[in-house]
Amino acid sequence: MTPSMRIPIDRQRPVALYQQIEAHLRRTIASGALVPGARLPATRALARDLGVNRLTVEAAYDELEADGLVAGRAGSGTYVLAAPALSRSGPRPEQAWPAWQLGLGGRQRTAPDEGACPARAISFADGRGDPALYPVEELRRVLQGVMRRDGSAALEYGPAEGQPGLRRTIAELLASQGLPARAEDVLVTAGSQQALALAATLLARPGDTVLVERPTYSGALELFRAQGLQVVAIPTDGEGMRTEELEPLLLRHHPRLIYTVPTFHNPTGTCLPAPRRRELLALADRHNVPVVEDDYVGDLRYDGRAQAPLKAWDRGGRVLYTGTFSKMLAPGLRLGFLLADGPVHAALVERKRLLDVATSNVLQRAVEAYVTVGRYHTHLRRTVRLYRRRRDAMVQALRRHLPSLGLTPPRGGLFVWARLPGGLSSRRLLPVAREAGVDFAPGSRFFLDPREGDPFLRLNFTAQEPGIVEEGVRRLARAVRRAG
Amino acid sequence: MTPSMRIPIDRQRPVALYQQIEAHLRRTIASGALVPGARLPATRALARDLGVNRLTVEAAYDELEADGLVAGRAGSGTYVLAAPALSRSGPRPEQAWPAWQLGLGGRQRTAPDEGACPARAISFADGRGDPALYPVEELRRVLQGVMRRDGSAALEYGPAEGQPGLRRTIAELLASQGLPARAEDVLVTAGSQQALALAATLLARPGDTVLVERPTYSGALELFRAQGLQVVAIPTDGEGMRTEELEPLLLRHHPRLIYTVPTFHNPTGTCLPAPRRRELLALADRHNVPVVEDDYVGDLRYDGRAQAPLKAWDRGGRVLYTGTFSKMLAPGLRLGFLLADGPVHAALVERKRLLDVATSNVLQRAVEAYVTVGRYHTHLRRTVRLYRRRRDAMVQALRRHLPSLGLTPPRGGLFVWARLPGGLSSRRLLPVAREAGVDFAPGSRFFLDPREGDPFLRLNFTAQEPGIVEEGVRRLARAVRRAG
Repeated sequence: MTPSMRIPIDRQRPVALYQQIEAHLRRTIASGALVPGARLPATRALARDLGVNRLTVEAAYDELEADGLVAGRAGSGTYVLAAPALSRSGPRPEQAWPAWQLGLGGRQRTAPDEGACPARAISFADGRGDPALYPVEELRRVLQGVMRRDGSAALEYGPAEGQPGLRRTIAELLASQGLPARAEDVLVTAGSQQALALAATLLARPGDTVLVERPTYSGALELFRAQGLQVVAIPTDGEGMRTEELEPLLLRHHPRLIYTVPTFHNPTGTCLPAPRRRELLALADRHNVPVVEDDYVGDLRYDGRAQAPLKAWDRGGRVLYTGTFSKMLAPGLRLGFLLADGPVHAALVERKRLLDVATSNVLQRAVEAYVTVGRYHTHLRRTVRLYRRRRDAMVQALRRHLPSLGLTPPRGGLFVWARLPGGLSSRRLLPVAREAGVDFAPGSRFFLDPREGDPFLRLNFTAQEPGIVEEGVRRLARAVRRAG
Repeated sequence: MTPSMRIPIDRQRPVALYQQIEAHLRRTIASGALVPGARLPATRALARDLGVNRLTVEAAYDELEADGLVAGRAGSGTYVLAAPALSRSGPRPEQAWPAWQLGLGGRQRTAPDEGACPARAISFADGRGDPALYPVEELRRVLQGVMRRDGSAALEYGPAEGQPGLRRTIAELLASQGLPARAEDVLVTAGSQQALALAATLLARPGDTVLVERPTYSGALELFRAQGLQVVAIPTDGEGMRTEELEPLLLRHHPRLIYTVPTFHNPTGTCLPAPRRRELLALADRHNVPVVEDDYVGDLRYDGRAQAPLKAWDRGGRVLYTGTFSKMLAPGLRLGFLLADGPVHAALVERKRLLDVATSNVLQRAVEAYVTVGRYHTHLRRTVRLYRRRRDAMVQALRRHLPSLGLTPPRGGLFVWARLPGGLSSRRLLPVAREAGVDFAPGSRFFLDPREGDPFLRLNFTAQEPGIVEEGVRRLARAVRRAG
C-alpha cells in the first residue's frame, strides 16, 4: 500500500505550500533516503493527509518531474528516478553541526595503527567460544515451541527482573554448581556487560573510584571510563589479584566497588586461590565496599581443582555476581544475569526497568525451555573436552614455534596470555600478524596505561579446530620473526 | 549428567575439609537453592573436582544423611530430601546486610496506597496497543526462516549499531513516511527506552538540567531522576508545549537536552502544531541544546492533518529521533531505534556497545525479514482503522457515563487524558476503580510534583474491543460516583 507521508509544512511561512512539499521531497531524494524506484504517495492521499488541495500536491510532483527526479507512470503512481546528478550526500562540512555535537565523536574501535584484518585470517582475537557449538537447531525448535504455545504472551513486555521461569532455571543451575542461589535474587540482563553497567551506574557516580585488576577485561575498563569513574588498578601475579596489596588501596581511594574476574581471568586466565578469595571478601567487608564478581567462564575448567566463586563465600549481600549465556549457549541471544541479595536487588531491578524496560521476553522463554540442569552440564562437559584439546594444541604449538614466548597454560576459560620476547610490542606486531593472516588481541587493551600491555598478547584458543590453531600459531611465529 | 560443584574450601583454614564441604552443602540446602530431589554429585566426581580424598566427600555426605538432609539411593547417587525443619530462609534481618546496601532499596513500582488490581479488571492502564494485533504467526515463521538460513551467524554478537539490513529497513520505512533518514544514521536499540537512556547518559551528567513537557512520559521522568539530573518542566496547553515560554527556561537553566513527545503526546495525546515545532527547533538551535524527540506512535493518526516529526525540520544534527517497534509490532521484541546524524552518532554507538554490546542479533534479523515498507503500512492502516473505532467508543462512553469529565478527543496515539470533576483525586479514585473492576494510570505519575497530576487520569483505549471499552467506562463511572 502507498505510505502516508508526514511532510513538514507550515501554513504561517510565506512560502507556497506546493513549494514546501516539493523542497522537502527534493531534499529527501537528494539525501539518498528515498531511493530510485520508491513510490510516492498518490496525490489524493497525500493531499488528504496533509490537509491541502490535491492541486497543491500535483504542482509539487510536477516540479520534481520537470527536474527529472520522479516520473509518473499512467495508472500506477509516481516513482523516484535514478538521479545521477544528485549523488547521495556525503559527510556534511563540520561547521554545519551544532556546537554541542563537536567534540562528541565516538572513539574509533580499531585504533588507526592496527589496520584492518584480512577476511581470511585465522582469528585468535575474539572474546567468545566456537560458533559451531551454538545449539542452533535446538534453539530454533524451542523458539517455535514457545511462539506456538504462548502466542502473544511471548511478545508482551515482561517483568523487569526477568521471566519467573528463567530466573528459577538460573537459580537451579547455580545451585547445581554449588552456589546457593535463590530465584528471587536473580535479575535477567542483556548479557553480563549490561549486568556490569547496571551495577556500576547504581553504585558509583562520575568522579568516584573503582578498583579493577591490572590487567582487566577491556569492556569493563571502557565502561567505567565512559561513566567518568576514576579507575585504580590492583597489582596481580600468576595467581591473580595480589590481595595483600588491596588494603592500602582501599584506605587511600575509598572505592565504590571492586570489579574482579577471579576465575579464569580475562585476559590472563589466572584463577584466584581460596585464601586470596577469603581475604578479598574480608577486606571488602571491613571497608564496606561491594564486590562485583564477573564469572563469565567460571565453569569452563580443563584441569586443576574446582574453585568456588566468591559469591559462594559471601555471608550475604557482599558480592554482586554476574554470569552469561553468551559463552555457553550463544552471544547473539544477549542473555546474562546478575545474582544479588539484599536491598540492592530491588534497586538494580528498578535501574534495569529504566534502562530498557526488560530483556526480550520471547528469548527468555526460549532459553528457559531449552536449558535444564542436565542439558547444561552435558553441553558443558562436551565443551570442556573440546576446548581442553584446543588449549593443548595452542600451548604445544606456541612452545614448538615460539619457544621464546612467555606463558603459563591456563586451567580454564578461553585465553592464553603470552609475553613477547625481547621488547617486541604487540601493537607493533599486530599489523604484521594480520598481514601474515592471523589476528589476536594486543595486551594494551587491558591496561589503564596501554603501554604497560605492549609486551603481551591475548590468544583465544577455543574458536577453531586444533589444526587451524596450529596453522595460526605458525603464522604468528612468522610475524614475530618479521617484526622482531 | 551429574553436575560438577564448585564448593568453597580453603586448605589454610583450621576446619576439616569434610566439615567445610558439609557446612556449605547444608547452607545451600537450607537456603532453598538445592531443592528436594536435586542430585548431589557422585562422591568420586566431587572429590576429583575439589582435589580432595573421596573419603572426605563421603564423610560430608554421611553427616548430611545422618541429619536427614540427603539420602543415598543404592546405585543412583545422593539426593536432597524434603527437610521440613529447614524452611526456605525468609528475608534476613536488616543488620546482616553490609552498610553500603542500606538505603539502596529500589522504589516500589506500585505505591502502597494504590493497592493491587484484581486479575479480571478491565485495564486502561497499560502503555501498549492490543496484543491481539501482534503478528505472532508471521514472527514465528520469520524466526524459523532466519535460524534455518543463517545458522550460527544469527547467534553471533552483531555490530553495536545494529544489523546493516535492519538499519536499511528502518531508514526506508522512515523515508517512506517523509523523513529523510539514512541507514548509516540509524542505531538499533532495545526499545525506545534504551534510546532515551543512551541519549541522556551521553548528553547529561548528574547535576545537569534537562527540560521536559509538563506533564511528560513517566519512564523518561524516572530515568532522568535516577540519573541524578535536575528536571525542569515546560508548561503545555491543549496543543502541547508552550514554546513561547521556552526561551526564559533555556536562559535560566542552560539545559543539556530538551526531551519532547510532540506527536500524540504521552500522556496528554496532544499534537504540536507546525509553527511551534519550528519555534522549538529555532530556540534549541540558538541556545545550542539538543532535542530528543520521542515519536513512539507518531504515525498512529486517526484524523486531522499529518504532522511531520521535528526531525523532518532538522537542518542537520539538531534532533535525536527515537522510534520503536513496541507499539506497531510487539513490545516483547524490545526493538527500537535512534536516528542521529553528526558526530554524536558514533558516540551513541560506542555508549551502546559499552551498555550491552549490541541488541539481540537473531531478533534483529527476524524483524528485518518481516518488515517491509508495504507490510508495515498495511499493518498500520489496519491498526489505525481498529484503534480509531476504539477511541470513538471510549470518547462516546465517557461522554455518556461521565459527562462531568473534562477531555479533548485525541487525534492519534493510545491515550485519552481526562480531568476529574470537583476536586476528585485520581490517586484516591484508583483503589475504588480497581475494586469496581477497572484500572487506569493516575495523572500523578506524569508530573514532577505528583499532586499536580491528581485531577487527571490516563486511559488507554486501544487494548480492548469497543464493547469492553464501554463496560470499563461504566465501571469507572460507578467508581467516580462512589469516590466523589
